[in-house]
Amino acid sequence: MKALVYHGAGKKHWEEKTPPQLIESTDAIVRIIKTTICGTDLHILKGDVPTVDAGRTLGHEGIGVVESVGESVHNIKVGDKVIISCITVCGRCRYCKRQLYSHCEDGGWILGHKIDGTQAEKVRIPHADNSLHRLPEGVNEDAALMLSDILPTGLEIGVINGRVQPGNTIALVGAGPVGLSALLASQFYSPAHIIMIDTDDNRLRVAQQLGANTIINPTRQNAVEEIQKLTDGIGVDVAIECVGIPATFKICQDIITAGGYIANVGVHGKSVELHLEDLWIKNITITTGLVNTSSTPMLLKSVQSGKISPEKLVTHRYSLSEIETAYEVFGNAAKEQALKIVLTAE
Amino acid sequence: MKALVYHGAGKKHWEEKTPPQLIESTDAIVRIIKTTICGTDLHILKGDVPTVDAGRTLGHEGIGVVESVGESVHNIKVGDKVIISCITVCGRCRYCKRQLYSHCEDGGWILGHKIDGTQAEKVRIPHADNSLHRLPEGVNEDAALMLSDILPTGLEIGVINGRVQPGNTIALVGAGPVGLSALLASQFYSPAHIIMIDTDDNRLRVAQQLGANTIINPTRQNAVEEIQKLTDGIGVDVAIECVGIPATFKICQDIITAGGYIANVGVHGKSVELHLEDLWIKNITITTGLVNTSSTPMLLKSVQSGKISPEKLVTHRYSLSEIETAYEVFGNAAKEQALKIVLTAE
Amino acid sequence: MKALVYHGAGKKHWEEKTPPQLIESTDAIVRIIKTTICGTDLHILKGDVPTVDAGRTLGHEGIGVVESVGESVHNIKVGDKVIISCITVCGRCRYCKRQLYSHCEDGGWILGHKIDGTQAEKVRIPHADNSLHRLPEGVNEDAALMLSDILPTGLEIGVINGRVQPGNTIALVGAGPVGLSALLASQFYSPAHIIMIDTDDNRLRVAQQLGANTIINPTRQNAVEEIQKLTDGIGVDVAIECVGIPATFKICQDIITAGGYIANVGVHGKSVELHLEDLWIKNITITTGLVNTSSTPMLLKSVQSGKISPEKLVTHRYSLSEIETAYEVFGNAAKEQALKIVLTAE
Amino acid sequence: MKALVYHGAGKKHWEEKTPPQLIESTDAIVRIIKTTICGTDLHILKGDVPTVDAGRTLGHEGIGVVESVGESVHNIKVGDKVIISCITVCGRCRYCKRQLYSHCEDGGWILGHKIDGTQAEKVRIPHADNSLHRLPEGVNEDAALMLSDILPTGLEIGVINGRVQPGNTIALVGAGPVGLSALLASQFYSPAHIIMIDTDDNRLRVAQQLGANTIINPTRQNAVEEIQKLTDGIGVDVAIECVGIPATFKICQDIITAGGYIANVGVHGKSVELHLEDLWIKNITITTGLVNTSSTPMLLKSVQSGKISPEKLVTHRYSLSEIETAYEVFGNAAKEQALKIVLTAE
Repeated sequence: MKALVYHGAGKKHWEEKTPPQLIESTDAIVRIIKTTICGTDLHILKGDVPTVDAGRTLGHEGIGVVESVGESVHNIKVGDKVIISCITVCGRCRYCKRQLYSHCEDGGWILGHKIDGTQAEKVRIPHADNSLHRLPEGVNEDAALMLSDILPTGLEIGVINGRVQPGNTIALVGAGPVGLSALLASQFYSPAHIIMIDTDDNRLRVAQQLGANTIINPTRQNAVEEIQKLTDGIGVDVAIECVGIPATFKICQDIITAGGYIANVGVHGKSVELHLEDLWIKNITITTGLVNTSSTPMLLKSVQSGKISPEKLVTHRYSLSEIETAYEVFGNAAKEQALKIVLTAE
Repeated sequence: MKALVYHGAGKKHWEEKTPPQLIESTDAIVRIIKTTICGTDLHILKGDVPTVDAGRTLGHEGIGVVESVGESVHNIKVGDKVIISCITVCGRCRYCKRQLYSHCEDGGWILGHKIDGTQAEKVRIPHADNSLHRLPEGVNEDAALMLSDILPTGLEIGVINGRVQPGNTIALVGAGPVGLSALLASQFYSPAHIIMIDTDDNRLRVAQQLGANTIINPTRQNAVEEIQKLTDGIGVDVAIECVGIPATFKICQDIITAGGYIANVGVHGKSVELHLEDLWIKNITITTGLVNTSSTPMLLKSVQSGKISPEKLVTHRYSLSEIETAYEVFGNAAKEQALKIVLTAE
Repeated sequence: MKALVYHGAGKKHWEEKTPPQLIESTDAIVRIIKTTICGTDLHILKGDVPTVDAGRTLGHEGIGVVESVGESVHNIKVGDKVIISCITVCGRCRYCKRQLYSHCEDGGWILGHKIDGTQAEKVRIPHADNSLHRLPEGVNEDAALMLSDILPTGLEIGVINGRVQPGNTIALVGAGPVGLSALLASQFYSPAHIIMIDTDDNRLRVAQQLGANTIINPTRQNAVEEIQKLTDGIGVDVAIECVGIPATFKICQDIITAGGYIANVGVHGKSVELHLEDLWIKNITITTGLVNTSSTPMLLKSVQSGKISPEKLVTHRYSLSEIETAYEVFGNAAKEQALKIVLTAE
Repeated sequence: MKALVYHGAGKKHWEEKTPPQLIESTDAIVRIIKTTICGTDLHILKGDVPTVDAGRTLGHEGIGVVESVGESVHNIKVGDKVIISCITVCGRCRYCKRQLYSHCEDGGWILGHKIDGTQAEKVRIPHADNSLHRLPEGVNEDAALMLSDILPTGLEIGVINGRVQPGNTIALVGAGPVGLSALLASQFYSPAHIIMIDTDDNRLRVAQQLGANTIINPTRQNAVEEIQKLTDGIGVDVAIECVGIPATFKICQDIITAGGYIANVGVHGKSVELHLEDLWIKNITITTGLVNTSSTPMLLKSVQSGKISPEKLVTHRYSLSEIETAYEVFGNAAKEQALKIVLTAE
């Protein structure tokens, strides 16, 4: 089979590779229908994630068809169409028992990281019963693909951690795919006013189409002042950070109201300054986290019932064998106006 | 009457002052029975709280007897013995309606700050119905005095924000009066293991007497290593910061388990480094806050029923007129082995 | 002024009455702009609410303009346009401190019950600061009128008590004004599937227009069987009872899934049979309650931002002086296809 | 091996039986160290649980040593000392993913019910990874045995469902083993006042020793009047029903305060009258449920740290081979002053 293999910082190749085999009785082998590229894949390629060894097949998102299952697999059977969760869930460790699947002792984020991933024609999925989600007929495949990672991430780590409530004024900082996922997911809870902040006008336009009431480009406007004006100096109830740099985390601190929530979704490469000299008295809550994907069944029902349309995040499409071109495009996302790129196996 | 008056940084004086009068129909005048000194009072005296004007009577804790009430006061009547809450609660602003009394638009922390406080023979209490708590007969007066501020602070901002649960392993950083209050209050929720960290051996001894299972003095031990050892490398479920400096907040970040809570209680004078490069993935929650005193009725019932004995935090006693001596002692708390000092009006 | 006065079971009259005066310093006098009739008013007229004395002006819903305020009123001033909350909130009793305003010791549901109500040209509102909500310019008046009682009731007692969550399948039993309010409010939380059950086809049609995905008329269909079919025998996550009779409460028990919530909104005149022999093992939660109106500020923001349009519940309009005719129509609601009737003062 | 076998209503026998074998790769075989008898076992013997077939080994509580494990078992190894949970947890079905283990589609309460149970020398435990809990050295075996069922039941279904909070006044109705477990577990949350109601003076005495502040025997006192007196007519914050008959559920309805919780733990054989004509307006919550045993790890830590001592519920001890005598005693629990009987394998 073919797979996109990482060969050390800066190097990847779409190449022939031995197809995966069942190893544990709880495994499944899935033939990929569609996969996509995540910002994390770019980080890996830059060499920022040293836990990824050369030789690793990249990718942690995908939908596919089950080709074989180990004898202990019960929820999934050969021929099922499935969503592959970016988080592998053993279902029996101390963390899984608390639904903190992101920290699963025999799983968590391992696909395209510690074991071969989904940017390939086939992938082995450990703990298939808890790590695959059966896709009912008629569900939009692009929408389903967004449920591997970015929708649950935006929902769980942004919206639920941030406790978005009806009537809230919320700000999202960062209109990349995850920020826009948080924007879509936030509307499950009917905030009264959604503000999106980003430096890219195209992404702001998309945000507006997807439900943002106010857009702010901090290269032209003072985001903090604008928001103070909009909120009569009170600030926002929830600020969701979807970038991962000190400057954007700073904005969140500057716009949060007393009693508010800052939900950090961004992947940070260095520490940030936390202004406890101002915030100690403000009764705020700051949360962090990697997605647990515990919301995937709910998201799937919501896609089925038309309550959310994450396929709107797809901007580009390629065949799976064109994945190297797709990486080029995704690597120049701003210029290419790219959000999510769907790669379809022939 | 006599009052302890602030005369600018470094200057205070126990002196004659015009007794307070009812101003609003919702006011009460309370004759002080007992008051005490808070770390915040020392900060004011250092000039760290520029919102305090010269001429201000200090103090925001106390119990007393109601001498007069405005015509709109219903819950409290002349002759009632009361706890004075450190937080004044109008009960009708946007924040009070959310029980975020600390941010009350016509109250909050104003006693001994923006209006004259409790270190005096008499004090005017605005919004008396919501800011005084009637003290039933037979309640220990020293215990009640601790309910003005430090017990609710330890409970609400430390224990409840930190979501201490039965079976938890928790760490408290800082064994001053508020840290010890959090230690007492944490036991409402029956954690399995309580660790206290402080550099003062005397305070650690007190912590042990009040329920800490493990004490750590970071001047002699590596607190982070000790805790990792104690928890098999997993870390603590809850870390409660009760000091207010970068070093202690750093300890909390280093010992927190995935999915854990860091509750900041300490008053910080400068920013801290938040290690989001490590913590972004750990699914943790950080909280801050000024006390709302919404827990005072519950604490009062708990004192009455013997479930908590905050009078154990009292180490020294003076008559109210000796308040300047008491400040001396409290200003050298470590040397004097002082925690809370009760000042009793003659 | 004129007012609709109750003269004992079956008797009411639109008649001249002395206009209300300020009594307490926390009162306001409001000149009614619009009022409406509630099912409870019909119950009173039947004599079912013995706590209502003859001579009482009826009505607990309305919007108006403030004519005068007591000297202790701060949030509201003369000339303000306001929503009158059906619940009067003292803001200082044991229940108000827990936000259980419905049980306020000096308020609760008193308008048109223990004191004169809103079906009049003017009304006295006690505890005006917490019982009136200032209406910003530009808000639809009919929508605002629905915020006096039925929208907060549907939201708080139906939707929030029932913990409606995104992705849920929920059933509403009863498509009267409150059931339809719960239907509107449930959509704040984006359930995947909403089922409405009622015996009136017109009301079911309205429910469908307002967002119900499935409608069931139990006079023609077996509601329990239909729902078991729809949910693959699993049942609904939330059942909201908005009628108040044993038969409808029974349906809720029969359709609820393991771990589900039954939120009772209906006003019951007699006991119901609770099938604990089946339900003891099902890990369900049953809630009851009178509205607290703590959600009114949030609902007002949501109306302003266009997230909810409760004015759609208005089916008939009369001038206030035609109130006796309006009662006729409302008393024959099914035949008249009446939901909410707006009565406007000239 | 020997086992206590059910032979239809009224018939049981301690007899030779083929030892259990591993069937699924997720099974474990456990050699029983200690087991005990539950009220449910008596119900089965009366013929009240028709889903139990003749030939079934009874019992769903026990501690033991693991003799063999299937190849997919990871958490548990041969030789481990374990607590057997009364609830079998597959960890992968729709209910397990919501931690509603009691409704596990391939487990739940099956031991001594749908598959052979623990009143035997050996037992097969399906889904061993999630259904057994490794017992650390030094933990009191009797205490551990109480963690199979009654402690988690009292905690989860009584105390947690009932949301017992510090400062609460709570009432427990029924001082049998589960009621006393709820009494012990309630103290995790430090209620200010605990009232126990039972008709058996011996059990009331035990309740008092285990922490009840007030005991009421309704054969001599009017329980409702006593409690109204004790609470100044306000009622209790939480009522926990641990009997399972209409009369005791009625008491709960009569003593609950506005905004309070009724947690039903009792197993009911027939419906009860729910007085919605009074309760619809009281903003109460009623919960039901079978234990999930999700609290077992926390309870184990609490036993280890000495925060709870469930071994105090043990009143009688026999060797396992004397189990028929033990049933006699347990069947006359009141006369024999029996609570939990420990049966120890030789």
